Amino acid sequence: MRVLSVEEARDIVRATARPLMATEVILAEEATGRVMARTVESDIDVPPYRKALMDGYAVSAQSVHGKPELEVAGELTAGMVSPEPLAKGCAVRIMTGTPLPEGADAVIVQEVTEPIDGGRRIRVSDTSVEPMQNVLERAYVTACGEAVLEQGVLIRPHHVGLLSEVGAARIRVFKNPSVAVVPTGDELVPATDFPGSGQIRNSNGPMLKALATSAGAEAHQSPAISDDLPRLREALASALEHDVVLLSGGVSVGVRDFVPRVLEELGVDCDFHRVAFKPGKPIWFGHRDHNDRRCLVFGLPGNPVSNLVGFELFARGALEQLGHRPERLRVEHLRVKRPFHHRSARRTFHPARRVDGGVELLPWKGSADQRVLAKADALCDLRPGPYTIGAGERLAVIPLQEVL
Amino acid sequence: MRVLSVEEARDIVRATARPLMATEVILAEEATGRVMARTVESDIDVPPYRKALMDGYAVSAQSVHGKPELEVAGELTAGMVSPEPLAKGCAVRIMTGTPLPEGADAVIVQEVTEPIDGGRRIRVSDTSVEPMQNVLERAYVTACGEAVLEQGVLIRPHHVGLLSEVGAARIRVFKNPSVAVVPTGDELVPATDFPGSGQIRNSNGPMLKALATSAGAEAHQSPAISDDLPRLREALASALEHDVVLLSGGVSVGVRDFVPRVLEELGVDCDFHRVAFKPGKPIWFGHRDHNDRRCLVFGLPGNPVSNLVGFELFARGALEQLGHRPERLRVEHLRVKRPFHHRSARRTFHPARRVDGGVELLPWKGSADQRVLAKADALCDLRPGPYTIGAGERLAVIPLQEVL
Repeated sequence: MRVLSVEEARDIVRATARPLMATEVILAEEATGRVMARTVESDIDVPPYRKALMDGYAVSAQSVHGKPELEVAGELTAGMVSPEPLAKGCAVRIMTGTPLPEGADAVIVQEVTEPIDGGRRIRVSDTSVEPMQNVLERAYVTACGEAVLEQGVLIRPHHVGLLSEVGAARIRVFKNPSVAVVPTGDELVPATDFPGSGQIRNSNGPMLKALATSAGAEAHQSPAISDDLPRLREALASALEHDVVLLSGGVSVGVRDFVPRVLEELGVDCDFHRVAFKPGKPIWFGHRDHNDRRCLVFGLPGNPVSNLVGFELFARGALEQLGHRPERLRVEHLRVKRPFHHRSARRTFHPARRVDGGVELLPWKGSADQRVLAKADALCDLRPGPYTIGAGERLAVIPLQEVL
Repeated sequence: MRVLSVEEARDIVRATARPLMATEVILAEEATGRVMARTVESDIDVPPYRKALMDGYAVSAQSVHGKPELEVAGELTAGMVSPEPLAKGCAVRIMTGTPLPEGADAVIVQEVTEPIDGGRRIRVSDTSVEPMQNVLERAYVTACGEAVLEQGVLIRPHHVGLLSEVGAARIRVFKNPSVAVVPTGDELVPATDFPGSGQIRNSNGPMLKALATSAGAEAHQSPAISDDLPRLREALASALEHDVVLLSGGVSVGVRDFVPRVLEELGVDCDFHRVAFKPGKPIWFGHRDHNDRRCLVFGLPGNPVSNLVGFELFARGALEQLGHRPERLRVEHLRVKRPFHHRSARRTFHPARRVDGGVELLPWKGSADQRVLAKADALCDLRPGPYTIGAGERLAVIPLQEVL
């Protein structure tokens, strides 16, 4: 199998990832970041009644226009409904948001009135009253049955009130893709342990879990598994029940690297396993169709920065596609702040930081150096070198996941 | 108390909100979006040993340089540590990531070797071997004790691997501010119910919960409470145990609007209650210092769009400040796509949508019309009118919360 370009490999992933159709019902107030699976239609008129927009007096405009004094026939506050229609020529004290009594079509604002006769009557200083003044007509915003939020919308916090108002306090959303994170390697100990001689902590597992979650997945981390054939087979068979498997390590050509062989045995078809970029050339991608379900398998390199870059270039987009989310990988073109010499003969995604509208390539010791990630917030896409990039030249930059 | 400008009111909120110092320990893999409360120092060297960067043969460069054939003294795979030093002039088969045996300082890559004598020896086609070639020195990336991620950093998914690697699988972060969302109003029914005559659903409660969560808070929604004095007092007393109270409704001048009075009785000092903007002039802000704790109280208007705008202009920044998060309200200056007539004599934050690098003011029926929020992703800051904004004029635009 030949070595693919990043673009060719991304096209293959894109063609293989299919949006998942499973849905679930959740509370709108907890739905931020989820995707609408059905268009929501209002089950009520909004407002549900002709409503006062100001504190004041509900009247029939025609019957009180020009009259300097009015009889007060009662008082209505929020949540109250007038038991009887408005008596002709009278006014009813009313609070903002309250339904007008039958027969009323306008509100005289409190500020132009003055109670007289111990509150039984009011004096009105501005006697010009127009129909519908300070009133919101029933269904003026939305009529019952109208669509208010469409299928496919990515739900933001400011949508939640709208959904709640129209009877969608519970909504049907697409299920998040389910992801199994499977770190492999004899040298790995849990991140919570202190590594013994020849061991290192499993840092890719927790990072991949956090990355997958940030791409809208439900991520499950399995314990790091050793390069041991039977245990690997068992762990992979169980991981393949998920929508996506993110393997870390075990995909290069070392003698103990059984992963591709076991995947093949389990019915996973390899779509590619070599892509031309640094850090992380040994990247493996395949899929299995089984019981009407498709599982995508990404074999990401074990070195931490290669692991991150592999996830960002290939797996993030697949997770977004599975979850009906808009694709996030957006390339910016930014000017380099300081000259940089690119040595490698391979296309390289180099950790970088955006500053003052430009970008700074960070000093970096290679794919095992994830310390650079403390400062990085982007990857610079560098074409094969060697060459020197001058200050002010524009580079393609991929921002790393923001947090809110 | 005079009517304040938005800027004056924001300054008061900013001066009153104090970053919370309480911390807690959580798993790094679940820490995306949290803020580091302590600087993390590495508890190990990274790498923890002199390590092979390629699959090949570990050698002592000086003793094998120029030699076309080498004896193979053993094999090392990931997680294995050589029990004995490298015999002089010999090579040890080694896999990427594995510690070099004592005495070895270079790796000859597999690609320039060929096994002979049934694997007991190798033939080397490129015999120039430099010290440290294909080797990563112990502590080359990080020395034990070095700081790797600073206090105050907002944790992003790509930090999680780094934290896990250096012994910070569990980290101390600042606690999220705790928020009580308290909707008030006799007309409110739970969002899950169908409103009866004169009633509307509580839509501000769920929205404020989602908004507060998106600003990094732990939000707790209390059931909507009626404008009934004893119940209001009880609900507010309990809400004041939180770091922030978000009240919705009950802050205008209607006769049943007891909220400001009850807050005062409970020891809350009013810092302001009138700010000059639309939608939402009746906005109330105060604080209570009690038992060494400060509680901030925001009384937001009951109309849904006023409620949202009040939250975005005042409460979001306070929550970010309490939680040690960077302030998110960033104003963009964008060109208006289509002419727009601004009628109101008051400064107005008008729902808008950013399109193609510009901004479009959306048709909007006023503060009760939250249907506009299905399409809006920003608020345009319009100075007091009336006037017409021409296509191409620049306006200050506040983006609404993104989701990831």
